[in-house]
Amino acid sequence: MELTERLLTGDRRAIARLITIIENDGAEAQEALAALYPHTGRAHIVGVTGAPGTGKSTLVNELAKVYRQRDRTVGIIAVDPTSPFSGGALLGDRIRMRDLSGDPGIFIRSMATRGSLGGLARATADAVKVLDAAGYQTIFVETVGAGQSEVDIAKAAHTTIVVEAPGLGDEIQAFKAGITEIADIFVVNKADREGADRTAMALQIILDLDHSSHLSLQAPRWRPPICKTIALHGEGIGAVVEAIGEHAAYLRKSGNLQQRERERIEGELRSIITQEMARSFFEGLDEAQFDSLVDSIIRREIAPYSAAALLLKG
Amino acid sequence: MELTERLLTGDRRAIARLITIIENDGAEAQEALAALYPHTGRAHIVGVTGAPGTGKSTLVNELAKVYRQRDRTVGIIAVDPTSPFSGGALLGDRIRMRDLSGDPGIFIRSMATRGSLGGLARATADAVKVLDAAGYQTIFVETVGAGQSEVDIAKAAHTTIVVEAPGLGDEIQAFKAGITEIADIFVVNKADREGADRTAMALQIILDLDHSSHLSLQAPRWRPPICKTIALHGEGIGAVVEAIGEHAAYLRKSGNLQQRERERIEGELRSIITQEMARSFFEGLDEAQFDSLVDSIIRREIAPYSAAALLLKG
Repeated sequence: MELTERLLTGDRRAIARLITIIENDGAEAQEALAALYPHTGRAHIVGVTGAPGTGKSTLVNELAKVYRQRDRTVGIIAVDPTSPFSGGALLGDRIRMRDLSGDPGIFIRSMATRGSLGGLARATADAVKVLDAAGYQTIFVETVGAGQSEVDIAKAAHTTIVVEAPGLGDEIQAFKAGITEIADIFVVNKADREGADRTAMALQIILDLDHSSHLSLQAPRWRPPICKTIALHGEGIGAVVEAIGEHAAYLRKSGNLQQRERERIEGELRSIITQEMARSFFEGLDEAQFDSLVDSIIRREIAPYSAAALLLKG
Repeated sequence: MELTERLLTGDRRAIARLITIIENDGAEAQEALAALYPHTGRAHIVGVTGAPGTGKSTLVNELAKVYRQRDRTVGIIAVDPTSPFSGGALLGDRIRMRDLSGDPGIFIRSMATRGSLGGLARATADAVKVLDAAGYQTIFVETVGAGQSEVDIAKAAHTTIVVEAPGLGDEIQAFKAGITEIADIFVVNKADREGADRTAMALQIILDLDHSSHLSLQAPRWRPPICKTIALHGEGIGAVVEAIGEHAAYLRKSGNLQQRERERIEGELRSIITQEMARSFFEGLDEAQFDSLVDSIIRREIAPYSAAALLLKG
């Protein structure tokens, strides 16, 4: 328990070590997380997602600087689900380290997939809890893209920022119907580039369509603001910080915060149960039977579902 | 069983109906899939993945036309994991339908996520089996992006094509370390655009690095060719078709085909078992106990892992 005690005092090496244990899916992480859990629930968690090349990392760095100027501590977890192999997150990590390192009020960590994507989403949620318990007040979770993986990770956030950039977003596919369902704030970054107004306009139109098609479940419904930034020059960052603050206030007032928290925890519980059941099943698996069933499936003697049913019975 | 019999004769309505049943995760699908399973394993499955805007769909359409000219039947499954909500895949679907419909040798279907991403990967694999059993000789599985979801879907393919386009791929993030581990063929589409040579060159460099860093497990190791295309004008498509044929021949000669098939089936079996265990657990769950544990987690009285352990014991 010494590790968690040090962690609660904000010891950076203890934080780093526990996140590594979480990444490696060690059983010891569970005990530590249980001890930390009562100390969580204080941070505001901001998800930041967008396609490669939109400048997410630069934006997060600039946001972090503004929060630091306002004396809030900042945690950054950069998740890279597009690099399920190795080393993908390292380069970006080093670039940003140069910019923000040396400030004890900031903790930066990148995480890549080990094994399943579900595992990454869970490890990310656990790393957020570690930074929350360690006292970081605003925690950014940065993910690449806008696929299901990012949706899962966004579910762990209080406020989700979707970053677009001109020239990437003008293809039909880039504006997915679903994006408005995860975005609380839109940022059009690289706003000095040609097409920025068109990108912002396209987002407005999508929001108009989306807003008029929904029945208002809670009044007033939150309409995602569209902020233009040039993160590379630190321009427009203040407006994004204000938008995050307004969204946090909206969540508290509307009761949405509790609802999101409940949904998040239900989802987390379901995913832990599923993974634990799978883990204990495959640990106790009769390898010989498994292999011989795989052989039968390859020879098309038995269908995969039927083989699964046999293994589950046995 | 009438449905599967009609399906084996190539009845298009029977195919469409079974894929709908699979999408809706109906238990009846399992019986039908078991009956079809002995008739699968004949198609060559080609995964096609790439970021939005690279022109994947146009490329697949043009590839399909060339295969049809050579009298091979073609199935196309367009998977859209970036649109977990609704309707996202429809627009592209209608555009392509206009181009290819009316040819009985082509079957096109788009699939979007219902529920989990794991569910989508499984539904896609099952839809491929349906088209395989129905006699389609080359089956394209087209997915957006290069995230974990696409990796999972690519695992079901014999040959995976990664599509890049100039101007999208020149950011650091676009060239993920892992992409060379899933790509059997690279296509630089929109090759008439500025930067196409630079994109192809960058891929060459990555392949050189990657190739020299691996110990050769089977000699000769396959080196992914880089094909330039302008899919919109049908240019360069023949070379991609040749590359697919060469890769198929390589898989057969090297023994890689059997190895991939075994890994694919092992993964499929594991995922079916995991999902079935979860399904039966949550069907029999004591909702009241679950809700009261969620309340305790929200009040930070118990950690999610500990609550999961209690539910698994109960």
